[in-house]
Amino acid sequence: MKGQPCPPEGFPDLYDAIADAYDRLDDWIVSEWGEKPRPERADFLQKYWASRFPAVRNVLEICCGTGLMLEQLALRGFEVSGLDRSAAMLGHARERLGPEVPLVLAELPSIPVSRQFDAVISSGAALNYMSGEDDLAATFRSVAGVLRPGGSFVFDILGRAMMDGHAGSDVWAADLGDLAFIWEFENAPSGDYCDATYTQFLHREGNPADSYEKTIELHRLYVLDPELIRRVARDSGFIDTAVHDNYTDGPAHDATLYETWTFTRA
Amino acid sequence: MKGQPCPPEGFPDLYDAIADAYDRLDDWIVSEWGEKPRPERADFLQKYWASRFPAVRNVLEICCGTGLMLEQLALRGFEVSGLDRSAAMLGHARERLGPEVPLVLAELPSIPVSRQFDAVISSGAALNYMSGEDDLAATFRSVAGVLRPGGSFVFDILGRAMMDGHAGSDVWAADLGDLAFIWEFENAPSGDYCDATYTQFLHREGNPADSYEKTIELHRLYVLDPELIRRVARDSGFIDTAVHDNYTDGPAHDATLYETWTFTRA
Repeated sequence: MKGQPCPPEGFPDLYDAIADAYDRLDDWIVSEWGEKPRPERADFLQKYWASRFPAVRNVLEICCGTGLMLEQLALRGFEVSGLDRSAAMLGHARERLGPEVPLVLAELPSIPVSRQFDAVISSGAALNYMSGEDDLAATFRSVAGVLRPGGSFVFDILGRAMMDGHAGSDVWAADLGDLAFIWEFENAPSGDYCDATYTQFLHREGNPADSYEKTIELHRLYVLDPELIRRVARDSGFIDTAVHDNYTDGPAHDATLYETWTFTRA
Repeated sequence: MKGQPCPPEGFPDLYDAIADAYDRLDDWIVSEWGEKPRPERADFLQKYWASRFPAVRNVLEICCGTGLMLEQLALRGFEVSGLDRSAAMLGHARERLGPEVPLVLAELPSIPVSRQFDAVISSGAALNYMSGEDDLAATFRSVAGVLRPGGSFVFDILGRAMMDGHAGSDVWAADLGDLAFIWEFENAPSGDYCDATYTQFLHREGNPADSYEKTIELHRLYVLDPELIRRVARDSGFIDTAVHDNYTDGPAHDATLYETWTFTRA
């Protein structure tokens, strides 16, 4: 994405390294950082969409990764499609979701899909990678372009309380057996974004038991101000914007770690 | 040592894995955990010993590791000897200190040395591995046995404030390039000791750039009560026991992270 820092020489493209470990990493994020478990996220979506008319039948997830959320929605009877910038991630999604699910390799704000959906979602804080108003507006316009009138857009992002919580020299690490990783967070002095360095050690089948492959990724996560989101949403053709506290019915507040946003396409 | 937990199958003996990374690890401990830099520890010892008569000329370090402290003392003109339980550690000490320095492979409380020294030291919290009164008393008696009358014993240990600070699910980690590690601390419910799991990823020269060797060590660190130390010291033939705050002239207090103990052999 435009706002991401250039990886130093020798750093892989974002998500190449993370893709093979992503499912376990996401489980760890749920258990350690308070992200809502995926089945509960899907329950929230199903319940939220149940009150809508016409009914939500088909859903596109942008930044779908390895397809963990799409799997939950498929289990609940939705017709699902996915889009992601990482071929490595989509490879895992293909294995998980089977040969029939449409999976599109593309980088936001581009959504090269020639149909309209009842709903679009983004989960796992993908939109925190948007570097500001221009990026966000282009993405919102693309989403509006693939939603039918009255369609639903739901996404989650890290709230300011979460970003501030990882400020300074915060380090997180875990050894999960054949996967170990270290997250180092450094907030920009401006407070506008947080740079997360992800160092991964992964044991590959067939290698000696004590031999691990090391990779490093730099992730820049932007703080997205709620007022900016509301304004850009309105300018991009959305109405009924609301922000929930981490996939619950309650509204987001100052201590909200994960914001769940719901828009309706006008 | 007797009080150490049996390593589970597949875990190496203590210090085998850590030896090749120890110098950089110790630098990190100094910078991140507030351990006194080695030159300042040596300055403290030199100044403390300067007031003694007869002068301190020769020094034995028990648990000398890779010889980092002995190097500092040798630079200041002391005649140094070392003892350690790890052949891997002593191999590095031999490289650092040259062929003439006596280095003894032995495990405390055994100090199989047939001479007496002006001073014995232990640094880097080695004595926190003593599991209680019996271990400690046997070690103190061995030290007294290799000290001349009036000789000096100086050692540092982690204070209770330091042990309590790593309580519960505390995790520390760093990626230093060709070395990365994760420390996971878990305090015993009794408060008597802390289990530290050290997971190390080390790149070896000649291996592919992204290939790292993973090893894990379990270290059990015991809290040593000051009253216990004083009593065992007295019973083992020491006088003038004092405890300083981390190699300074000030006395240890409730917030002291590193206690520096000074004894005199009666």
